[in-house]
Amino acid sequence: MTDQSTQPRPTLEAVAARAGVSRATVSRVVNGGEGVREPLVERVRRAVEELGYVPNQAARSLVTRRHDAVAVVIAEPETRVFADPFFALQLRGISKELTAHDSQLVLLLTEGRDDHARVARYLAGGHVDGALVFSLHLDDPLPSLIHGVPTVYGGRPGWSDGSRGVVYVDCDNRGGAREAVRHLVGLGRTRVAHITGALDQTSAVDRLDGFRDVMVDVDPRLIVESDFTPGGGEHAMRELLERCPDVDAVFAANDLMAVGAMRALRERGRRVPEDVAVIGFDDMLPFTEQADPPLTTVRQDIEEMGRLMARLLLRGLDRSGAAAAGAPSSVVLPTTLVRRVSA
Amino acid sequence: MTDQSTQPRPTLEAVAARAGVSRATVSRVVNGGEGVREPLVERVRRAVEELGYVPNQAARSLVTRRHDAVAVVIAEPETRVFADPFFALQLRGISKELTAHDSQLVLLLTEGRDDHARVARYLAGGHVDGALVFSLHLDDPLPSLIHGVPTVYGGRPGWSDGSRGVVYVDCDNRGGAREAVRHLVGLGRTRVAHITGALDQTSAVDRLDGFRDVMVDVDPRLIVESDFTPGGGEHAMRELLERCPDVDAVFAANDLMAVGAMRALRERGRRVPEDVAVIGFDDMLPFTEQADPPLTTVRQDIEEMGRLMARLLLRGLDRSGAAAAGAPSSVVLPTTLVRRVSA
Repeated sequence: MTDQSTQPRPTLEAVAARAGVSRATVSRVVNGGEGVREPLVERVRRAVEELGYVPNQAARSLVTRRHDAVAVVIAEPETRVFADPFFALQLRGISKELTAHDSQLVLLLTEGRDDHARVARYLAGGHVDGALVFSLHLDDPLPSLIHGVPTVYGGRPGWSDGSRGVVYVDCDNRGGAREAVRHLVGLGRTRVAHITGALDQTSAVDRLDGFRDVMVDVDPRLIVESDFTPGGGEHAMRELLERCPDVDAVFAANDLMAVGAMRALRERGRRVPEDVAVIGFDDMLPFTEQADPPLTTVRQDIEEMGRLMARLLLRGLDRSGAAAAGAPSSVVLPTTLVRRVSA
Repeated sequence: MTDQSTQPRPTLEAVAARAGVSRATVSRVVNGGEGVREPLVERVRRAVEELGYVPNQAARSLVTRRHDAVAVVIAEPETRVFADPFFALQLRGISKELTAHDSQLVLLLTEGRDDHARVARYLAGGHVDGALVFSLHLDDPLPSLIHGVPTVYGGRPGWSDGSRGVVYVDCDNRGGAREAVRHLVGLGRTRVAHITGALDQTSAVDRLDGFRDVMVDVDPRLIVESDFTPGGGEHAMRELLERCPDVDAVFAANDLMAVGAMRALRERGRRVPEDVAVIGFDDMLPFTEQADPPLTTVRQDIEEMGRLMARLLLRGLDRSGAAAAGAPSSVVLPTTLVRRVSA
């Protein structure tokens, strides 16, 4: 399409001629330089630079099996990836860590679950050294489609039982939820409701478990299943007000739903926190600080989780490092309750 | 890392044994099936399916030179990619078009310009069939680093002179700007200012040219250079009010800056549109409708531009299609003035 596509690329032969060495020597230098004397390495490097030679990585990777690239797969339609700041934060952490190791971040976007077979094909196709996989739903076929690609998961996969060598990074969803609900109870609230996330995701299930840990024998009408979106939170809050007009506190499983719930409360003339106290989960800045009123929430360090995922994957790929540090294992980060105005 | 990484992948040999054919036959079927009789193709396909065989694409692509994947490169730090809804809209159009052709969208994220050499390496490395490149700044080295990869640009590249076979998709930036400024003049405004985008991007330069087409011999203090961000627009508006307190209209080179400018005007007690009329560019929905007051702007169909870029690239890759349709050429889409409240 551009003229560049038809320009001949400098060949290995051209580099060899320029450097005055054999093809085999150029090939060895390009693939790491082992067993080649330093002055020769230098000459080849200069020729490579002068000619703008780019080794064909499809061929090269057959030898080295390294691509210096890591795939990120978010198992959500691309519209949600860009609408939910959670993913942007996690990608920021990943991007920083990969860039520091000169590894290319390759984000594989999809329209929906039908595309996951294609994603798995790309992963298996020898284009990346490993994969970081997020936001899996329990029945997603993706993990079973991934073969032969080192993978670190964001959030505990539902099918992981701890014994199968699955590596993930998560936060203490259950402990964080417990702390949030205890805080509401400590404020003297007695009709504490919970708006859940999508219950085919472990983060939502774990937060619900944390809620139940504190609210033993809770009135089941105080639990409404939702989906982690602002619209879902708004809708769930309306339903809660219908079912239990005496509700005096809400723990929403993420900040987006908490803000949606506050919108529904305002619309019905309920004051936050005077009539109904509201707590979210994530601490998505600056969004939580700018909410009206500023949102009390459970903070998890999302960017740091992204960074850690990338670090665990790279450590697993670097065999010498792994030998020193041992095989990577999953990490669960602590959470903190951040008190603002809403509860 | 996961157990999958250590599971042996089914081999070509295993498929050959299962189907009762030679390795060469399996290889031919996997690479398109030419010259193999249909019953054999059927047997091999069934064996491939039963064993869950995934051909090594690094090896396969050396033969077929097809990856069924297209890279998208946005020449901005990843933080801006996620902060500016413009990119999300364009990616939506691209994603829909590629998915319809079962081609994987591979988004290459970077921290900054220092990473562009790595991006070019990935592009040249045989991992994608082509590239869609956006948001180039005039001195960006990326285009000169891309070799041998069919490329379509989003926005007219500054170094393109029309004769070098460069293919891009753009909107009529200059014509749209002219229409916006004529509208302000038509409202009876006489002190019309312009807040420019980053002038190392052709879109910003073209919109400035459109402004000058109408405002011949304009007071140079009425033009403030900015950067396409809301903060930049706010800052520029404050500077305009200092320089020219009698300013009665502003054409901002995008919606984000227009909204920033309206914030600065409100802060100084100027009413929009009564005291100062404001027009943006892009029509980023729902953002422009929800602005206070709703923003008059120049609409370009951003999602459609993304879709078109993908379509042009795929058409160029499909040689049979190109033979029928001719080589793809650049497209410049029209713009429309959308009148709301701010002007």
